[in-house]
Amino acid sequence: MAEPNAVSQLADMELNDGTGDQLSKDTSVADDDRVDPWTVVASSEKGIDYDKLIKRFGSSKIDQALLDRFEKVTGHKPHHLMKRGVFFSQREVHRILDRYEAKKPFFLYTGRGPSSGSMHVGHLIPFVFTKWLQEVFDVPLVIQLTDDEKFLWKDLKAEEALRLAKENAKEIISLGFDSEKTFIFSNMEYIGSSPPFYMNMLKIQKCITFNQVKGIFGFTDSDCIGKISFPAIQAAPSFCNSFPQIFGNKKDIPCLIPCAIDQDPYFRMTRDVAPRLGYPKPALIHSTFFPALQGAQTKMSASDPNTSIYLTDTPKQIKNKVNKYAFSGGGASVEEHREKGGNCDVDISYQYLTFLMEDDERLEQIRQDYTSGKLLTGELKKELIVILQKLIGDIQENRKKVTDDVVKDFMRVRKLKYNY
Amino acid sequence: MAEPNAVSQLADMELNDGTGDQLSKDTSVADDDRVDPWTVVASSEKGIDYDKLIKRFGSSKIDQALLDRFEKVTGHKPHHLMKRGVFFSQREVHRILDRYEAKKPFFLYTGRGPSSGSMHVGHLIPFVFTKWLQEVFDVPLVIQLTDDEKFLWKDLKAEEALRLAKENAKEIISLGFDSEKTFIFSNMEYIGSSPPFYMNMLKIQKCITFNQVKGIFGFTDSDCIGKISFPAIQAAPSFCNSFPQIFGNKKDIPCLIPCAIDQDPYFRMTRDVAPRLGYPKPALIHSTFFPALQGAQTKMSASDPNTSIYLTDTPKQIKNKVNKYAFSGGGASVEEHREKGGNCDVDISYQYLTFLMEDDERLEQIRQDYTSGKLLTGELKKELIVILQKLIGDIQENRKKVTDDVVKDFMRVRKLKYNY
Repeated sequence: MAEPNAVSQLADMELNDGTGDQLSKDTSVADDDRVDPWTVVASSEKGIDYDKLIKRFGSSKIDQALLDRFEKVTGHKPHHLMKRGVFFSQREVHRILDRYEAKKPFFLYTGRGPSSGSMHVGHLIPFVFTKWLQEVFDVPLVIQLTDDEKFLWKDLKAEEALRLAKENAKEIISLGFDSEKTFIFSNMEYIGSSPPFYMNMLKIQKCITFNQVKGIFGFTDSDCIGKISFPAIQAAPSFCNSFPQIFGNKKDIPCLIPCAIDQDPYFRMTRDVAPRLGYPKPALIHSTFFPALQGAQTKMSASDPNTSIYLTDTPKQIKNKVNKYAFSGGGASVEEHREKGGNCDVDISYQYLTFLMEDDERLEQIRQDYTSGKLLTGELKKELIVILQKLIGDIQENRKKVTDDVVKDFMRVRKLKYNY
Repeated sequence: MAEPNAVSQLADMELNDGTGDQLSKDTSVADDDRVDPWTVVASSEKGIDYDKLIKRFGSSKIDQALLDRFEKVTGHKPHHLMKRGVFFSQREVHRILDRYEAKKPFFLYTGRGPSSGSMHVGHLIPFVFTKWLQEVFDVPLVIQLTDDEKFLWKDLKAEEALRLAKENAKEIISLGFDSEKTFIFSNMEYIGSSPPFYMNMLKIQKCITFNQVKGIFGFTDSDCIGKISFPAIQAAPSFCNSFPQIFGNKKDIPCLIPCAIDQDPYFRMTRDVAPRLGYPKPALIHSTFFPALQGAQTKMSASDPNTSIYLTDTPKQIKNKVNKYAFSGGGASVEEHREKGGNCDVDISYQYLTFLMEDDERLEQIRQDYTSGKLLTGELKKELIVILQKLIGDIQENRKKVTDDVVKDFMRVRKLKYNY
């Protein structure tokens, strides 16, 4: 999947099922937020208007009814990222819950566009959530590393993109994924190792015209033909027979894709194509963006170190960055803060806590105390610093055990611990 | 490679080395012959004007100097297909002869777009010539079966395209190729079995914009993204490191590509890209088209059985087709023919003999006798029928020995009998 780096336009809605006509329609408006796989820019300083996005993309809000059903069907309380609206949008999660209830198989698919530096905290969110979903559902997980995309979009050697993919795999593995249940693959390696995956790529490529990718992704005549055909590559893992080593000769096992909402254009396209190929549509669950330290107008960027907390940051760096850069919603002085209170809606430290603090009651207490002015900005930041230091410290500890051999094990084309 | 089936335009020239700017230039003119991978239509009934084509494509004529050098360097008299101008055009064959003289390695690459019926005699020509070149040079040969192209361009299931590729492989093998020296591959199978091949595809795809393939191949915004990125797939086998099982980790071994001139657009593009990727440019040797029985305005088509002699035709079918359909340059009556003589330039039976009859003196005698009126059309046709029956009978005899296992052997990813 992608990091923001290029100018692109938005296509709009999910596509009427089966027709696909609307794939090429682009009704994005100048003063709308810009959200696509390469660009996320909010039009107001309040950040992205996610309700508007749901409407424009044609997805569904994760409402209380879905949260209730989730708990009833799985026996697990919804993850705090769901309850708090970080995962806020979805397509057909009910269908996945139906299957879970009926004990019918499905799988999870997510991915990542390799970055040259370390991953940052924002990158973690979909993986943390996906790992939790896998534990709840106990289903296979496939993770696509789009080193080919990285190579096509950036000024970078192909071999370097592949190397980055494997470095990134180490960080992903450090979150604690189970190698018996998880297949991580680099496109550059796996496409050349799996005729069925290539066959699916081709089948998808046959269904999509240049006009359509132009409408959905904003490609132009000056884009290289690799970019133009890339969307089929991100679509292909949605179909279980791209992984015969896991799913045998099955064609009808659907997947659930947890991802940030900027990746939705790929999967609107995929959902449009699926019935034409006789495959089930992927279901989706979308997250908001993890904001930059400087504020919610944009998401974290791996290329500006001061916007992000990295998985390689030391406890001291974490402390300094949060103290120095995390945009504050507090008063200008202690006196003013005590009097007027802080504004949680724009305070980045508070925002980060909603992503990272598991304890609902504690979080609510912090919100009240900060809003009333009882809790100072420095105290709020300290809460965040402790959580970040613990989270990242644990990952760094795990990371030491992730050798090249462990990566090979995750990336080996093999059966997983499931029978299909 | 391709059969004619779609409307397309021509790009024009070879590209100034290294710049590639001219790749997107299209200077084809309405009253020119149309020659591209999907369409071959002559603008006059004399057939394609090949001299004009050489000029437009920017290739070089195979002249007496090259024929002389070929004989001197290889110790073999040039093949009759070269001497008689069937292989009439080339790019950098001198460089390949330089390497042969210096005992430096190179390889041969040719290909075929699988057809649903049997191959016809026209399809044989590049293979007959390639086989001879392999015997002369004793170098590895790779043969690409573009089942993916077939799938993308035709209303056909992917699995069916792959099946056709393997059926076509049987006919190709029946021409007598040596499995120790020849690797035949289906794109659908091999691309999914060779990360280095996919890596080269990607690298090529990054160098070519939609604007460029539009100019070279006439693609439009309504074409599917599979077609748009396909040219990279036909380009990739030009580079030896697409076949590490044969060439180890070498990157600098060039190839010579024997093909019909309609495939040149792919390789003009490839030659433009090669230096940017640090690879040697492929050399080329181009053939004219094998005319349809009905006349030289177009080439044989696998889809109209009466334009072609198939490898599956019986001796009786061969005889009937030649007698019934082969366009005659003879007189309207025996008397007229005896008086005015026949016209070898338009007589299809005579044309076919120039492709198929090895004996130069005999062919010259036939030409003289037919031109003078001494030889009647029926007698000329008989000469051709005997040769076709023998050629196709021999292939049919070989074909019986080409089991599925033999095909597997040729298509297995493996070393060949060469050390690189």
